[in-house]
Amino acid sequence: MERLPGFRDFYPEPLPHSDTWSADARQFIFDKWRETARRYNFREYDGPPLEPLELFTTKSGEEIVGQLYNFVDKGERAVSLRPEMTPTLARMVAAHERNYKKPIKWFALPQLFRYERQQKGRLREHFQFNADIIGESDPAADAELIALLIDTLRAFGLTEQDFVIRLSSRNAWHEFFVSHFGGGWGGGPHAFSPISAKLENQLRIRGDGSGVSPESYAKYEYDFFQTIDKLERTSPEESEKKLSALGFSLADVNRFIESGQPTAELENILQNLAARGLGNFVKIDYRVIRGLAYYTGVVFEAFDAKGEFRAIAGGGRYDNLVKLISGGKVNLPALGFGMGDVVLLEILKARGLLPKFDANVDVFVLIEDETLRAPSLKLIQELRAAGFAVEYPLTPAKPDKQFKRAQELKAAFTAKVESESYVRIRNLNSRDEIVAGFADAANHLR
Amino acid sequence: MERLPGFRDFYPEPLPHSDTWSADARQFIFDKWRETARRYNFREYDGPPLEPLELFTTKSGEEIVGQLYNFVDKGERAVSLRPEMTPTLARMVAAHERNYKKPIKWFALPQLFRYERQQKGRLREHFQFNADIIGESDPAADAELIALLIDTLRAFGLTEQDFVIRLSSRNAWHEFFVSHFGGGWGGGPHAFSPISAKLENQLRIRGDGSGVSPESYAKYEYDFFQTIDKLERTSPEESEKKLSALGFSLADVNRFIESGQPTAELENILQNLAARGLGNFVKIDYRVIRGLAYYTGVVFEAFDAKGEFRAIAGGGRYDNLVKLISGGKVNLPALGFGMGDVVLLEILKARGLLPKFDANVDVFVLIEDETLRAPSLKLIQELRAAGFAVEYPLTPAKPDKQFKRAQELKAAFTAKVESESYVRIRNLNSRDEIVAGFADAANHLR
Repeated sequence: MERLPGFRDFYPEPLPHSDTWSADARQFIFDKWRETARRYNFREYDGPPLEPLELFTTKSGEEIVGQLYNFVDKGERAVSLRPEMTPTLARMVAAHERNYKKPIKWFALPQLFRYERQQKGRLREHFQFNADIIGESDPAADAELIALLIDTLRAFGLTEQDFVIRLSSRNAWHEFFVSHFGGGWGGGPHAFSPISAKLENQLRIRGDGSGVSPESYAKYEYDFFQTIDKLERTSPEESEKKLSALGFSLADVNRFIESGQPTAELENILQNLAARGLGNFVKIDYRVIRGLAYYTGVVFEAFDAKGEFRAIAGGGRYDNLVKLISGGKVNLPALGFGMGDVVLLEILKARGLLPKFDANVDVFVLIEDETLRAPSLKLIQELRAAGFAVEYPLTPAKPDKQFKRAQELKAAFTAKVESESYVRIRNLNSRDEIVAGFADAANHLR
Repeated sequence: MERLPGFRDFYPEPLPHSDTWSADARQFIFDKWRETARRYNFREYDGPPLEPLELFTTKSGEEIVGQLYNFVDKGERAVSLRPEMTPTLARMVAAHERNYKKPIKWFALPQLFRYERQQKGRLREHFQFNADIIGESDPAADAELIALLIDTLRAFGLTEQDFVIRLSSRNAWHEFFVSHFGGGWGGGPHAFSPISAKLENQLRIRGDGSGVSPESYAKYEYDFFQTIDKLERTSPEESEKKLSALGFSLADVNRFIESGQPTAELENILQNLAARGLGNFVKIDYRVIRGLAYYTGVVFEAFDAKGEFRAIAGGGRYDNLVKLISGGKVNLPALGFGMGDVVLLEILKARGLLPKFDANVDVFVLIEDETLRAPSLKLIQELRAAGFAVEYPLTPAKPDKQFKRAQELKAAFTAKVESESYVRIRNLNSRDEIVAGFADAANHLR
């Protein structure tokens, strides 16, 4: 019987097969994520892996359903395995925000799911480090969150030679959009295509016919953001065509990107990170704008410095989401990032930064004389009670086979009961041997 | 927007509401589970939370579907959220057992799901500590697993006054069944009801008409085991009726239970546990037989000593399951137990064994002079890099408010940058204050 396509089995190392994933590497990553979050005083939370479908469509629109692992449950509820954590976080915070001092600094390590029919061989689940700050609109919160992102990657041994945070802002693009849209429209330097002329007519529907309705404007800006988001994956000809249809020129857009001039808000963040000594990990890169509709301000992505891998992490401000999810009841600014386990693992492997995962046995208790099995079990119990990881032969085995097993398990020591009172302890690295009293054995294993 | 019924939100402590669960308590439990498993040299694994429905019906029959969180996915596959971990373990082991030395000692902390329509207000998910030993049929493996179970509960501070392992064996009941079935049948001390006489005819269908077909025999024994399993929840009259229909008497059954005479196999396990000093945690209790069909030998359950709560954990041998799941390709004896997080949490609360979960902030950095924010950020970065959990005011705040926040967060120290070179450190317990050089600050926080 096979597991479902797109799902992973996690085995203890050494891995039995190229198709299997390492439970030890996963735990190593989880531990680092938790440890860094702790140093930044982010508290852990979690929600259900299954949520009402509406939670995700409210945030992302009906079109998200095509990418969801959704179904109708036995109680006729439309439900979905969570594709992301942010809606759950917004729901949980909205329900109980009064009990927590702001800013709320929380993290979670959820398993996330998606179901895209066409993507054969692609994973349908992954784990993600989600860290969010809720209730603080000052850019100091953005800096704190980005510092956490940087230090999380550094905790794995990655350096400024290995990765970079590409920092951008939808506010900067909004300013660009407004100034070029207003300026270029109806008389600027841009040549309008027939399509944009048609759109121009649609936009000039409000009031006296000369203005642009906010809804149309927002839709227009959304289309513009989507085009910017896809710049790096689209040919210049295609981008030019799309931008032109929206009333912009690729040349202007590229000029803005190349200027890399930080806005006041971004400058604030850069200085904050520089004060922490983290300035070299960040660069302004306006090509980053993030695809999701709900980002409202600063956005950023972490990439390996050589650009060989997909994004390691991404995030930004979503100041309107808590209000949206709570049906207008709670209004709190928020920002966060997500870092998946798959790309991170690829990079750590490529950089040789994954440790070797052994059984980590401290002591292998040899039982060569079966008449001493009972006192051996007593010793095993005492050593385990003292905190040591202890292994031993469950059933009678030849001495050389036992010793070989101790070596395979990379045991630091062997211990052999020699009588009801004495234990022979051998350090497998130094090969030193001593005979200790039973009660004293644990002291010789440090 | 509400979460789905039967699912839990896990919040950081202190808990905001009686309806919320503690993410900190959950992590506390997970840490203890992992730590005990490590001392016993059990290695962690995990599988997908979603599996083919067939994996669970193969093991438990079609009737299990009524209790499953199952659905048809977008690829027309019949799938189910996992209700238990053992089928996944059997699948994973069967796929790659050759790469692992026997016995395999593995554990997992899966979230498990069930959907029973009628159970309003009941949880539809929980987390479980699953530990299994695969590839060893000797009772020494049973003893090792039960010792792990005992030490796991002891790791939480529970003692032999708090819990007991009720040890039993389907082999013991099998012997009872065979001897009483064979002895009583057609002339023993039992008075047969008309129903059992009818069943007798059905059973005597094989060969010369005097024997009992193995299939009928197995079905008969299964019904008998199910009746034993329900003894404690059924009235004596009802049990007597059921047993009598199967050709047994409640008096005989009760006599066997009260004898509590260990079989050779159970005696072996008791002696092994006694050698470890764990004898007082176990008692023979034949009322335990476990409801699931797939157990084949030793079975056990952990209960609180006062009998106030549901079972804390349960397990036993399932020597045929790996063969069944692998379609006959791999045949390995196996045994395991599962311990859920819900009953355990109830007991730890009742016994006062749950610690208080604070933010665990080591240092709160006070920023009273905003012109010193930049060097304060530098200090914060250095302290976090040294491993301390550090909090500080993200935005300007009044000194007394900052200090209050430090106290709320139970910070061990406050640190205040007094110049580009000096830091004032205050121990909030002893109230000692010192002024340290910037580079030396971390050394005064141990």
